[in-house]
Amino acid sequence: MPTETVPTALQLRSLVTPEGELQVTLASVPIPVPGDDEVLVRLEGAPINPSDLGLLFGAADLGTATVAGTPARPVVTARVSEAGMKAMAGRVGQSLPVGNEGAGRVVRAGASPAAQALLGRNVAVLGGAMYAQYRTLPAAQCLPLPEGATAADGASSFVNPLTALGMVETMRREGHTALVHTAAASNLGQMLNRICLKDGIGLVNIVRRPAQVALLKSIGAAHVCDASAPTFVQDLTDALAATGATLAFDATGGGPLAGQILGCMEAALNRTAGAYSRYGSTTHKQVYLYGRLDTRVTEVDVNFGMAWGIGGWLLFPFLEKIGPDAVARLKQRVADELKTTFASRYAREVSLAEMLQPGMIEVYARRATGEKFLLNPARDLTPPAGF
Amino acid sequence: MPTETVPTALQLRSLVTPEGELQVTLASVPIPVPGDDEVLVRLEGAPINPSDLGLLFGAADLGTATVAGTPARPVVTARVSEAGMKAMAGRVGQSLPVGNEGAGRVVRAGASPAAQALLGRNVAVLGGAMYAQYRTLPAAQCLPLPEGATAADGASSFVNPLTALGMVETMRREGHTALVHTAAASNLGQMLNRICLKDGIGLVNIVRRPAQVALLKSIGAAHVCDASAPTFVQDLTDALAATGATLAFDATGGGPLAGQILGCMEAALNRTAGAYSRYGSTTHKQVYLYGRLDTRVTEVDVNFGMAWGIGGWLLFPFLEKIGPDAVARLKQRVADELKTTFASRYAREVSLAEMLQPGMIEVYARRATGEKFLLNPARDLTPPAGF
Repeated sequence: MPTETVPTALQLRSLVTPEGELQVTLASVPIPVPGDDEVLVRLEGAPINPSDLGLLFGAADLGTATVAGTPARPVVTARVSEAGMKAMAGRVGQSLPVGNEGAGRVVRAGASPAAQALLGRNVAVLGGAMYAQYRTLPAAQCLPLPEGATAADGASSFVNPLTALGMVETMRREGHTALVHTAAASNLGQMLNRICLKDGIGLVNIVRRPAQVALLKSIGAAHVCDASAPTFVQDLTDALAATGATLAFDATGGGPLAGQILGCMEAALNRTAGAYSRYGSTTHKQVYLYGRLDTRVTEVDVNFGMAWGIGGWLLFPFLEKIGPDAVARLKQRVADELKTTFASRYAREVSLAEMLQPGMIEVYARRATGEKFLLNPARDLTPPAGF
Repeated sequence: MPTETVPTALQLRSLVTPEGELQVTLASVPIPVPGDDEVLVRLEGAPINPSDLGLLFGAADLGTATVAGTPARPVVTARVSEAGMKAMAGRVGQSLPVGNEGAGRVVRAGASPAAQALLGRNVAVLGGAMYAQYRTLPAAQCLPLPEGATAADGASSFVNPLTALGMVETMRREGHTALVHTAAASNLGQMLNRICLKDGIGLVNIVRRPAQVALLKSIGAAHVCDASAPTFVQDLTDALAATGATLAFDATGGGPLAGQILGCMEAALNRTAGAYSRYGSTTHKQVYLYGRLDTRVTEVDVNFGMAWGIGGWLLFPFLEKIGPDAVARLKQRVADELKTTFASRYAREVSLAEMLQPGMIEVYARRATGEKFLLNPARDLTPPAGF
């Protein structure tokens, strides 16, 4: 009797060695067998988001990246600087899977009715290790896609939609009535615009180029401020006065922008202030940094009184804080409006092997607006027999 | 019948003119007559705190200060830069009284029993305009000093004691268990040390000079880190690991210190971290900026994950937030421990006229530790007859 071979499939891995080298490879891993309450998903779409790039390439200097291996099994290596290695201390020597979210078809299911009900369905999934051909997950963790929705339609069902909804939810819970968003022409920014238009929420969009102003205006944005314009501070103050926004979500994180936003909020509030107070307006002004597109030091020229805060904002702790009922409500809205409010567009679809080619890395690692990539691991290999 | 003259007394005023000049003068103002529920306090002590200097001198460049007038009625003038005038916009043309708090004797009282009960007592008072010889206030706003306590003993009964208690209260309300304090050898810092020693709270003191380390050690401080030492980052991380402090109150406000504290908190937390998370520790780390001893731009090198915040902290909004019952509890503790935990020391006592002499301004405007001045407006003039 021949020995049965365990079927394997590709999974992307990122490793930082103690010697200061990043290695990104495609590992052959056994295709897991789902437990009773689990399903096996064949992934057909996974976005390459800024939040994935951090784990994928760590603190490596991509200018030093080289690609070896074979076209089907590329091996990317790059140097990590000494300073970068300090930030990497927690992950050195661990071969880490990557990919926060994705979508695909349920090709095997455990015995439970919930798992069986998903067999053959397209589902969106969240939970890491999605840059792979297969992934098992608890059935309860799958979001079944509406009839007719492809894996590409559902690939970005969680991170961007829940982040955009989380911003609006944070606004309401913390007593603000309108929002500011930076890098606002992004996929996420466009979603946030559609949410705010639909819900009647004032939104001030900050972008860095005139073309992005045009893009946002074309989808109905009322307030778009170009940080590269000489009138930026005046424009932003006007938009803040018009909307009353006292909460901002900043994707750039570095440089002077967060402080400028707080300064303009204070100036907008002072247009209607009463008596002089040397402590400034008593209205709390808040900027959350949720990304790091600008890697410079964050410089805050504190000239906006004492009622202010700057802090980090991260989706998963936020979801934990608001609890399962609130999260279920947000997820239901995503499912209901998947092809409208929460539609994503991709510049290009690539296979696992293709995404590790140098010409590709350069493009998506730039994190440039309008150049989001969709990974489709189903393009790499014929699926093993039986699925 | 002769016309009755209204008795007048001195009150310090600060004015910024539209032409960009600061003028600090001693005005003659009528001595107010207390209403039924009010008392008239003859002020005999008022601290010159950093929080007073902001209103007193505004954004003026004290390097340009000149003193004219007479020895008894000096007139200080100084230039306000164009940039400074932007911050002063709200107060231009308004002659503002100064002085957050003080203490003195109740020399007249309204008809109500509460007011009458204070007649002849030494009381501590809060509410602005204390750099004056007299002040009327609601009886309910006075804190009667314990038997034997002088006005000098009670002059700093509010701002520093309530700020120090407010830090501990904030720590408890926001779920932290230990504290960091900067410019920690200050009068306020010494109070905070006494509170924390008495209440068994871990406190990490950050100072800028070896002499301040010695001072704090001499009053029993367990953790004192000298920011001027080459081992500062290591020392601070060790102290944070030992105490578990994840909340800091920073009096300096500018430069890199707030960010360094957050970075060291994260490093201390990571000494006991479990699995790698590229988003850093999930423990919230907070720095409140409550002062501005360092006027540089605040520079934050965000290398401490996503669970962090920096914000302004101000005593009066904090007291409003916690409500009158909690405030009454804090005030009672101040009264009970006025000559122990909350004792203040002053380098020098000056009259209103003396505090406007150039040699004096230079010293107290430096905001240097150990050089706090006590203003005693009773030194300026013989009190009008009848008191």
